[in-house]
Amino acid sequence: MRATTIHGPFDMRVEDVPDPVVQEATDAVVRVLRACICGSDLWAYRGESARQPGQRIGHEFLGVVEETGSDVSGFRPGDLVVAPFVWSDGSCEYCREGLHTSCPRGGFWGSVGSDGGQGEAVRVPFADGTLVRLPADAVSDDRLLTALLALSDVMGTGHHAALGAGVAPGTTVAVVGDGAVGLCGVLAARRLGAERIIALGRHRARTDIARAFGATDVVAERGEAAEAAVRELTGGQGAHAVIEAVGTEQSMRTAVAITRDGGAIGYVGVPHGSGTGLDLSTMFDRNIALHGGVAPVRAYIPELLTDVLDGTIDPSPVFDLTVGLDSVPYGYEAMDGRTALKVLVKP
Amino acid sequence: MRATTIHGPFDMRVEDVPDPVVQEATDAVVRVLRACICGSDLWAYRGESARQPGQRIGHEFLGVVEETGSDVSGFRPGDLVVAPFVWSDGSCEYCREGLHTSCPRGGFWGSVGSDGGQGEAVRVPFADGTLVRLPADAVSDDRLLTALLALSDVMGTGHHAALGAGVAPGTTVAVVGDGAVGLCGVLAARRLGAERIIALGRHRARTDIARAFGATDVVAERGEAAEAAVRELTGGQGAHAVIEAVGTEQSMRTAVAITRDGGAIGYVGVPHGSGTGLDLSTMFDRNIALHGGVAPVRAYIPELLTDVLDGTIDPSPVFDLTVGLDSVPYGYEAMDGRTALKVLVKP
Repeated sequence: MRATTIHGPFDMRVEDVPDPVVQEATDAVVRVLRACICGSDLWAYRGESARQPGQRIGHEFLGVVEETGSDVSGFRPGDLVVAPFVWSDGSCEYCREGLHTSCPRGGFWGSVGSDGGQGEAVRVPFADGTLVRLPADAVSDDRLLTALLALSDVMGTGHHAALGAGVAPGTTVAVVGDGAVGLCGVLAARRLGAERIIALGRHRARTDIARAFGATDVVAERGEAAEAAVRELTGGQGAHAVIEAVGTEQSMRTAVAITRDGGAIGYVGVPHGSGTGLDLSTMFDRNIALHGGVAPVRAYIPELLTDVLDGTIDPSPVFDLTVGLDSVPYGYEAMDGRTALKVLVKP
Repeated sequence: MRATTIHGPFDMRVEDVPDPVVQEATDAVVRVLRACICGSDLWAYRGESARQPGQRIGHEFLGVVEETGSDVSGFRPGDLVVAPFVWSDGSCEYCREGLHTSCPRGGFWGSVGSDGGQGEAVRVPFADGTLVRLPADAVSDDRLLTALLALSDVMGTGHHAALGAGVAPGTTVAVVGDGAVGLCGVLAARRLGAERIIALGRHRARTDIARAFGATDVVAERGEAAEAAVRELTGGQGAHAVIEAVGTEQSMRTAVAITRDGGAIGYVGVPHGSGTGLDLSTMFDRNIALHGGVAPVRAYIPELLTDVLDGTIDPSPVFDLTVGLDSVPYGYEAMDGRTALKVLVKP
């Protein structure tokens, strides 16, 4: 089959690789219908996260089950399914608690030896614990399929950030980061009943989506000017709940500065310097909590799926460019250059 | 009157200072019956927190109301009262939420221009919002009076750490720091229903108190050996709830290492390097939350007071040395040299 591989910084290729097959009795093989490129893939693309030459990439996909191992009981060939960005056994203590990302037998798509989502098919370990079935008729609804793909990562990650930040009915929320996760954070905050949602961002196409997702205010300033603007919008206090969806020193510094005393930062931006942006003395004096991390999206898919299917939420607008598998390298270029927000891949 | 002043590192003096008087209509003057020295006072003593020469010190005290301003309605001369370590107006949005430490009109005893607790009397701003009345007959019960003094800071701070760490019935708790706050954290964790409480400490006198307060296990090792010991005690996972009551890089590093995935660190150690001990990448991968800060003990005094009065908790054993006012400098020496755990001052 064909799949995307990474050979070094800015060197993405689409190559022939071995067809995935069931290796363990708990495996399934899924033919990919939709995949996408994640903002976090750019860390590898830019050489800021190490990868072995030829390693697969892509951790978001949905598709059709093609083959199942003898121990797989929850799925059969032909089922339409979505995968969270981490596989997990579904039976350990952490999985039962909903912290699937800490499953001792779990792993990330695209890690060495595993398939990535940006290819024609994927071998899925622990299929019963990992996959979630989608309604079969969604396959013929292009927009719905795109919205469902967001359950693989960005929608669940935005939801995780909103939970970590303590979003609840009546709260004021600020969102740092205008990428797909930040925008899904806006959508998640609205879904959780936030009264006011302040989106930080300066790119009109993105802030338009933020407004459509429920942002009540947009702050286009950066750095200290942005902090001042959020304070002005919140009576000088800052936001109860702040979503940090970038992971850099500056984004975390901004997040701390705009959090109301006693509030919380829900952080889901993969840390790339953000630890340095944490001013612990300020957080201590103001009782600001930090609560987030890699999102256990498998735990969130069922409830979010319900809301996508009934139209309560529609994260599909975060995908603004569609490419075929052979154009994935172009998709990376477009996201790296910020000419695309999030790239949908149709293998 | 006589009061303790700090003139430079290791230079504590007990001097004649002006008698406190009611300056604002909301003030009260309290004659101090019991005060004490806090572990956090040692940062100033050692020169690691800047002070102006002659500044007052001490932020924990209880005593008898001597005079009240015309707007004070909740107290009158003769009332036995305890003060939290921060004064606050009791009426602002933050005070009403229970985050008295963020009161815009609040302040710390011993800050420039204010009285400190380690003296004969204290001018108390916003007496109605700040002070809490104690039963009059407690004045004749020496042990009870000592236990009640702990409500001024260490007991409420330990409780704040336990809440931040998410202590709840059935949880496993680990406590980093064997000072008075850490020990009160043990007591608070037991009060909140923790099933297992692991105290880290190597000083027998302190770990004996920890056991008396409810610790089920004591880990005497340090650094990586301590982390390994906690992991072994917790089936390799770490503790759900970790109380960090020191504030150094090493203590925070230990706290992160011994927190179970998905758990939380309740930190109340005043940050002195602890930010550097936060490994955000580890916290991100393992979804470890950080939740604490300066404790709004005013909010906690009523419920803790009830439990002290009915004997449910007795934090008095954390005081292991008693001095008169003139011997406060000796008290600092003893705490700095760790020959005393916490020094009680009887002016």
